[in-house]
Amino acid sequence: MKAWTIKEPGNRSKLTLTDKEIPKPKNEELLIEVHYAGINRLDIETRENTSLTKPYPILGVEVSGIVKENNSNNKALNPGTWVTGLVKNGGYAEYAIIPASRAIVLSKNLTLREGAAIPEVFLTAYQTMYWLGDLKKEETILIHAGASGVGTAAIQMAKKLSNAKIIVTAGSQEKLDFCRQLGADITINYKQEKFDEVILQKTGNYGVDVILDFIGANYWQKNMNSAAVNARWILIGLLGGAKVEHINLNEFLAKCISLKGTLLTPRSDEYKADLVSAFQKNVIPYFASGEIKPIIHDVFSFEDLPKAHKAMEDNENVGRLLVNIK
Amino acid sequence: MKAWTIKEPGNRSKLTLTDKEIPKPKNEELLIEVHYAGINRLDIETRENTSLTKPYPILGVEVSGIVKENNSNNKALNPGTWVTGLVKNGGYAEYAIIPASRAIVLSKNLTLREGAAIPEVFLTAYQTMYWLGDLKKEETILIHAGASGVGTAAIQMAKKLSNAKIIVTAGSQEKLDFCRQLGADITINYKQEKFDEVILQKTGNYGVDVILDFIGANYWQKNMNSAAVNARWILIGLLGGAKVEHINLNEFLAKCISLKGTLLTPRSDEYKADLVSAFQKNVIPYFASGEIKPIIHDVFSFEDLPKAHKAMEDNENVGRLLVNIK
Repeated sequence: MKAWTIKEPGNRSKLTLTDKEIPKPKNEELLIEVHYAGINRLDIETRENTSLTKPYPILGVEVSGIVKENNSNNKALNPGTWVTGLVKNGGYAEYAIIPASRAIVLSKNLTLREGAAIPEVFLTAYQTMYWLGDLKKEETILIHAGASGVGTAAIQMAKKLSNAKIIVTAGSQEKLDFCRQLGADITINYKQEKFDEVILQKTGNYGVDVILDFIGANYWQKNMNSAAVNARWILIGLLGGAKVEHINLNEFLAKCISLKGTLLTPRSDEYKADLVSAFQKNVIPYFASGEIKPIIHDVFSFEDLPKAHKAMEDNENVGRLLVNIK
Repeated sequence: MKAWTIKEPGNRSKLTLTDKEIPKPKNEELLIEVHYAGINRLDIETRENTSLTKPYPILGVEVSGIVKENNSNNKALNPGTWVTGLVKNGGYAEYAIIPASRAIVLSKNLTLREGAAIPEVFLTAYQTMYWLGDLKKEETILIHAGASGVGTAAIQMAKKLSNAKIIVTAGSQEKLDFCRQLGADITINYKQEKFDEVILQKTGNYGVDVILDFIGANYWQKNMNSAAVNARWILIGLLGGAKVEHINLNEFLAKCISLKGTLLTPRSDEYKADLVSAFQKNVIPYFASGEIKPIIHDVFSFEDLPKAHKAMEDNENVGRLLVNIK
């Protein structure tokens, strides 16, 4: 089968389309004929990871496609079923393995194209907002990078599942307008305004109960200023750097703030299976009814995968970037 | 009634024993004839707090004593009942008010002297280990200042309620030996050893699932090094300073660490009532059976309250410091 790997760690020019053996599903695994794969920032980090050694892996962490072999007892996953999910091996390939416990069966109104836009970003947003952030009905949430894949997923769930008051940041009016269409209540262009000042002013100095922070160091003090008493501040990315100078722990005590770092990919298989199970139960019905939608920015051909990586690096997408494999 | 307040914010010489009106309990409150009051570090912080304005408050946050008036419908709190609890107004006084919802009825085997040693430190240790730290059976917990009031409470509960593997730090062999008697498994003299190195060595590089951190800045990097994957790091004091010069957020993500700042005193009445209710149910039975004991270092006469403050400032106590009022 055709699959994208790397010649060596580095920039886009290191991506290489090669021939690989079709993987064999073990017990409790599915073999999937891949139709679409999602592009994630993590794939770029993997591509650049100089600690990788040969043989280099197939890149990609999520796919949609059709079950070809079902090595589990779950008959709902028999061959022919349309599924999406986080893969075991690489996803940028004509075939991939998904553990049966983390396959998401697509509701009938969703296409395979739409399905590929769901797993990584919706599961990450669900995990961070609910399992770690403990977002409660009507609470206020600050979602940075509102137009990103995780951002657009988070806005929709926070509105539909929790009727939250949603504050987003993004870097263009077009992105902010789109976030507002999805359910954002307050939109802030971080290039033009200090988001902490806007938040304190618009919430009557209350601040926000939950923060989804993909940025890290650059936003440290502004996030701290924006946090309400008992805030849950979930750190899921470091696009703005990892190193913070001069922090004051008093602020954590005085406002009883919880700062929680998290990544989804390194979690255990059991954790991911439990997450998929909760997501199937609590969120998939909103997809079936059309109240929540996968947001797709662009779909590239399989051969154009390097262009898809460039689009993610350029950071101009509103929603997901995908590649079409079949 | 006699009560200790301050002439102005400052050192122990500012403490002054004055005459005050006996407080009147409102609806759902109890009037307590105070027998013992606990000394807490918070009282010293209040004494020194230059943002206080006149009239200065009666100091003290917890007492044991006998109910004189019960303005609630809870007949278990009728006059004559022996109780302990966190007060509404000051506790260094002949009478004090406790909301009925946070009165802890003493089990029959406990004296009023023992009772005064329970509320602040046991509730703080319970809240931080279980509500915030989510300590599970057989997990590993690092308790700094193991011989302190909260430390001695935490060691006993972690052992009896959770059979945890308990690692403590303290600054003398005498304190460490006492912690071991209470149930500590690994004891570290922070003056002689680097606690993070000892922990990684003794846990086979696993680290600790929960950290009770009273220290803050001075221990920042060592705590980070000691944290296991998915660690809950509860920050409840800043004896070692609040300002950290450099932090690396990558460490929070890579190990999925949660850092939670907390204080008990500023929490809402409802929060404290819920905490007392959980504590009554889950911990008081261990006091009744004698498996968990209040740890008292010294009891001062009411007139000697400045000496009790000195003892706390000198940091030589193993367990609680109390004053005897009646």
